Amino acid sequence: MKIVEKIVALRKEMKEHGIDAYIVPNSDTHNSEYTAAHWAAREWISGFDGSAGTVLVLANQAFLWTDGRYHIQAAHQLAGTTIELVKAGLPDVPTIEAYLADNLPANAVVGFNGSVVTSAYVDDLKTKFEVKNIKLKTDVDLVDKIWKDRPASPTSVGFEHDVKFAGKSRLQKLQEVRQEMAKVQADNFLLTSLDDIAWLYNLRGTDVPSCPLLFSYTLISKDKATLCVKENKLGKELKKSLLDDGIILADYEDIYSLTKNINPATSVIYSPTMVNYNLANSIPATCRRIKATNITTHLKALKNPTEMANYRNCFVRDGLHRVKFIKWMYDNIGKVKMTEKTASDYLTKCRESDPHFQGLSFTSIPGFKAHGAMMHYRVTPESDVPLEQESFFLLDSGGLYSDGTTDITRTFALGKLTEAEKKDYTLVLKGHIDLSMAVFLHGTRGMQLDILARHPLWKESINYNCGTGHGVGFFLNVHEGPHNISPRLLDEKIIPGMVVTNEPGIYREGVHGVRIENIMFVVDAAQSEFGKFYKFEALTLCPIDTKGIIVEMLTAEEKQWFNDYHKMVYDKLAPHLDSAHQAFLKEITKPI
Amino acid sequence: MKIVEKIVALRKEMKEHGIDAYIVPNSDTHNSEYTAAHWAAREWISGFDGSAGTVLVLANQAFLWTDGRYHIQAAHQLAGTTIELVKAGLPDVPTIEAYLADNLPANAVVGFNGSVVTSAYVDDLKTKFEVKNIKLKTDVDLVDKIWKDRPASPTSVGFEHDVKFAGKSRLQKLQEVRQEMAKVQADNFLLTSLDDIAWLYNLRGTDVPSCPLLFSYTLISKDKATLCVKENKLGKELKKSLLDDGIILADYEDIYSLTKNINPATSVIYSPTMVNYNLANSIPATCRRIKATNITTHLKALKNPTEMANYRNCFVRDGLHRVKFIKWMYDNIGKVKMTEKTASDYLTKCRESDPHFQGLSFTSIPGFKAHGAMMHYRVTPESDVPLEQESFFLLDSGGLYSDGTTDITRTFALGKLTEAEKKDYTLVLKGHIDLSMAVFLHGTRGMQLDILARHPLWKESINYNCGTGHGVGFFLNVHEGPHNISPRLLDEKIIPGMVVTNEPGIYREGVHGVRIENIMFVVDAAQSEFGKFYKFEALTLCPIDTKGIIVEMLTAEEKQWFNDYHKMVYDKLAPHLDSAHQAFLKEITKPI
Repeated sequence: MKIVEKIVALRKEMKEHGIDAYIVPNSDTHNSEYTAAHWAAREWISGFDGSAGTVLVLANQAFLWTDGRYHIQAAHQLAGTTIELVKAGLPDVPTIEAYLADNLPANAVVGFNGSVVTSAYVDDLKTKFEVKNIKLKTDVDLVDKIWKDRPASPTSVGFEHDVKFAGKSRLQKLQEVRQEMAKVQADNFLLTSLDDIAWLYNLRGTDVPSCPLLFSYTLISKDKATLCVKENKLGKELKKSLLDDGIILADYEDIYSLTKNINPATSVIYSPTMVNYNLANSIPATCRRIKATNITTHLKALKNPTEMANYRNCFVRDGLHRVKFIKWMYDNIGKVKMTEKTASDYLTKCRESDPHFQGLSFTSIPGFKAHGAMMHYRVTPESDVPLEQESFFLLDSGGLYSDGTTDITRTFALGKLTEAEKKDYTLVLKGHIDLSMAVFLHGTRGMQLDILARHPLWKESINYNCGTGHGVGFFLNVHEGPHNISPRLLDEKIIPGMVVTNEPGIYREGVHGVRIENIMFVVDAAQSEFGKFYKFEALTLCPIDTKGIIVEMLTAEEKQWFNDYHKMVYDKLAPHLDSAHQAFLKEITKPI
Repeated sequence: MKIVEKIVALRKEMKEHGIDAYIVPNSDTHNSEYTAAHWAAREWISGFDGSAGTVLVLANQAFLWTDGRYHIQAAHQLAGTTIELVKAGLPDVPTIEAYLADNLPANAVVGFNGSVVTSAYVDDLKTKFEVKNIKLKTDVDLVDKIWKDRPASPTSVGFEHDVKFAGKSRLQKLQEVRQEMAKVQADNFLLTSLDDIAWLYNLRGTDVPSCPLLFSYTLISKDKATLCVKENKLGKELKKSLLDDGIILADYEDIYSLTKNINPATSVIYSPTMVNYNLANSIPATCRRIKATNITTHLKALKNPTEMANYRNCFVRDGLHRVKFIKWMYDNIGKVKMTEKTASDYLTKCRESDPHFQGLSFTSIPGFKAHGAMMHYRVTPESDVPLEQESFFLLDSGGLYSDGTTDITRTFALGKLTEAEKKDYTLVLKGHIDLSMAVFLHGTRGMQLDILARHPLWKESINYNCGTGHGVGFFLNVHEGPHNISPRLLDEKIIPGMVVTNEPGIYREGVHGVRIENIMFVVDAAQSEFGKFYKFEALTLCPIDTKGIIVEMLTAEEKQWFNDYHKMVYDKLAPHLDSAHQAFLKEITKPI
C-alpha cells in the first residue's frame, strides 16, 4: 500500500465513524520512550521514521508535525505523499492541539486511539476544545482497520531478575508500595509503566528496543496484586515464581475489566502522565482519583545497597571494556580502516564478551567532527565516515547488564587540536567538574544544580539545548525518573540513593561536538546546625581525554578533582588489566 | 477591654451568627505586606504584635498560630489571655486549615472576614473542607462589631508621582495594560494591589507603613478606567490631573458594585492571590475568569529608561549618606556613646537631609553581634545595646526617595575579628560576588541562579534559611514581584530591566550575623548562535568592609570583581564628597 492509498483508506474510515480529524501518534499503550514496530502507526501511515512526530489527517489535508531535528529528513520522506510538513518549534507554528482548536468548526469530532495517548494529554485536549464544543472519539483504532500486515505485538518471553542483583524480593517491594499507598489513603494502585512493573516484580523481557521490558499492566490493592501479561510471554520458571509469591496472573487485556470492577467506593492512585486515556477512563467514576507520580518511580530511584554493590562491579567491567576500546582505537587509527561504525562496533564487541551483558542501553552515538554536533546522531551505511587524525570523535554509548545499566560519553582528540577546539573541550570539562563537585542542601532540586554545569559555558555565550543529566535504571531504562538535572521546572529533590548523569556539551553545527558524561551517585556530605548536605560520587570509571585540556583555564580546585578522578579510575581498573593495558592506562591518567 | 473580655465578646457574636470557629488574621483588604493599625485585628484581639500570626477562636478554646521567629515573644504576650500558642513550623504541628479540617465536626461553620483574605486562600479552604461539608461564613467582620475604639482606616492624602521620575504617563501605562489585556482576551482587569495601582496611575500616599501607597481599587475595561478611593484622600491637584486624563473617580467601597455590574458575558482578569475573596466573589458567575499574576506587576518590574536614570542618581546620593555614616561610626566608636539605635538613627538623619527623601523603605535592622543573627531584628529600648569594638555590626536599611527605593546591607567589623568570623564573612562575600558575576541565558529563573550565591556556603555545610534576593520597587515597596532569587518554585524569568537584591548571609544563633546586600540591575551581556545572555550590574554604591576578608579564599576572578566594584564606588561617589570624606573613601576602597 502506498502512503497516498493509506491516507485515502483512513479518510474512508474517518467518514464512516463521523470523524473530522484523526491524530496518529507513534506511541504504545504504556507511554514507553521507545516504540516497538507494532505500535509505529505514524511511521506506517506516513513513511516518516524519525523518533518524534505525529500525523494529523483531515478530510482534505494531512500533516506531519515534527521538530527541528527532523525537518530535512521529514521533507525528504514525505515527498509525494500529500502529507504536508509542519515545522514544530519554529516561531508562530502552532501545536497540533492549538491548530485544531483554532481551525476546526464548532462541534467537530476529533478521533484517535485513546489507548496510546496519556490521560493527562486528553484532559488537556478537552480543556482546549471546550469553547468550541469539539468532541473526542477515542475508542477506535482506525489505523488498525487498514493496516493489513501490521507486525504482531512484541512476543518476548519474560525472565526473572535474580534477587542477588535486585537486592529486594518482589514481596518486599510490594510491601513498600503498600506502605506508601497507606500514607496517601490509596486503596488501589494502577500501574502501567513497563519499567516500574519490571522493577516491582523483578522481571525483565525484550519487548521494547534497548529496554529490558515486558508488555504488562498491574493493579495492586491492599491484599491483591494482579499482573496482566499474555500467558505465552511468561517463562515457566518465572510463572511458577510469581504464583509462589501469590501474584495473581491475568491476560494482558484483562486490565480493562479489572479496572472497571474496582470497588466504586474506594480510591485509586495512578499517574495521569503515564496511564493511557482509555484505561484511566475505565476507573469507576465514583472512585476517588489520586493523581501522582507512580509510587514505584520514587522507590525505584533509590538504589538499594545490593544494587549499588552490583552496580560498582558493573562500572569496573564497563570501564575495562572502554579502556580496551580506547587503546585499540589509538593503536590503530591511521593504520587500519576505521569508521564511526567500525569503532562503535568494536566497543560493542568488547562489551559482548561480558558474561552479564544483555544488549546496548541505547543505539550508540559515534560522531566524528560535524556528526558530533548532532546530539542524537545515528550512524547508518550512508552517514558513516572514516575517522581521520584530526578534530574530535564523540562516542556516547551504554550497556545493559544484569548488574546495571551504563551510559557514558567521552570525546577523543584524534589529532592535533586547534585552540578553539581546546577551548570548547575545556569549557565542557569545567562544567562537568563543577557539577561533580556540587555540595547541596537537602531539598535541592535538579533545576537548581543545572547552572553549575552550564555556567562556565554561559560565561562564554555558549549553551547546550538539552538537560544536563537524567536518572538511570538498574538493568532497566537508561532514562529513568522521577528526577533529572535540567532547567525544566520539576519539583523533584536530588537525594542520596539516586543516580544521575552529568553530561554538559558544546554542539557547533557543521563543525564539532564535545560532550563528557559520567554517571554519579548521590551520597551524604555532612550534617550541621544548618541541615543535611549531599554530594556526588562519580560511578563511571573511564579516563577523560587530556589532549583537549587548556590546563590554565581550570581552577586549582577543578584540577584537583580531575587528578583525583583519574587516580581513582586507575586504581580501580588497573588490577584487572594486563601489563600493556596497565601501562597505557597509567599514561593517559597521569596528573595534569 | 482585656484580651479575655474580647474573646468572650467575640464568642457571643459567633454564637449569634451561628459560627463554630472564627479566624482572625492581621491583613488588610489588599493583601498588603505591612498592615495599617485599622486592620491589625489579630493584634487587637490577642495582644500579640509580631509580624506574622493568626488567631483561631472556638467555642471553648482559642489559639494563636505563629512561626519560630515569634515563639518566645508570643508565649510572653499571650500569658493570661486564655489564648494558647501553636508553634507553627515545628514537626507534626498542623496548619490552621488542616487543624480545622481534622477537628471540626461535619457541617460546622467557619467564619472570617472574607474581605481580608485572598480568593486563592478561600478556594483552598473550600477544597480542604469539602469532605466534611464544613461551611464558610465570610460576610461578617465580627471583630469590628466588638472593637469600639478601632483606629480609623488610613487617611493619607494621595499625591502625584511626577512623570519626570516615573518616565511614563498614566495614559501610556493604561495603553500598555490594555495591550496586554487584548493579548489574553480580557475585557476587564480588576486590580487591588496598592503598589500596582500606585504605579499605574503615578500616584502615591502614606497609608501603609514603609510603603508610599494609597488605599484604592481600580477596574479597567477597554474604554474605561475607574479609580475607587475615598474622596477626601485625593489632593486637589491629583484629582484634577486624574480627571483631565479621563480617569473615572468613584468611592472606595464602590468597587463592589462596579464589580457586580461587570457585563456577565465578558471576561475578567485578576490575581486570585491578591484580590480579596469577597470582591472576587462579586464578579458575576457567568464572567470568564482569567486568573493570572497582575499585568501591571510584570510591566512595573521592567524599569523604564527614565526610572533608571533617576534611580542611578538616587543610588549615588544613598551611597553618599552611607559613606558619611560609616566615617562617623568609625571616627566615633569607642569615643562617644553609640548603640544600635543611635547608629541607625544617625544614618536615617543623613538620609533625611536628602531633598528627595520620603521615609525609610522598611524598619532598619541594626544588629550588633548576636542580634545580627536575627534576620528581622528590630531595635527597641529594651533590646538596644551599645556597640563595642569587637565582632560584627550588621546594618540593613533603605530609603524611599522620589527617584527610587533603596535597600542595602553592610556588615562592619567593629574590632579585631577571629579567624572563624573572617571565614564566615569571606564565604558570604564569595556568595555575593559569585551571583554578581552571573551570566545567564534568556529564560533563566531566579531559582536557577540562587545556588551561585549559596554554593560557597554549602561547601562548608552552611545555609541561610531565606531567599537570596527580591525585586525592588521604584519609589514603591522594597519587596516587589513577580520575580525573586530563591530556591522556592517560581516560574518567573529574570530579564533585562528588572532590579533584584543579592543578599546571602550567615546567621549563627546567639553569636553573630553576616549579610552583604546590593541591588542589581539586569542587563544584556551578549548574543550568540546559542541565544541571548544577560548579566547583573551593581546599582548600590557603597564600600564593602575589607577587614573581614581572607583574601586567599577568593579566586582571582572574585578578587578582580571586588576591586572593580570598589573602584566604581569611589569613582562615582568621590566627586560629591569633601576632601576628608574622599580620603576616607579612597582608603576603604583601596584594592585588596
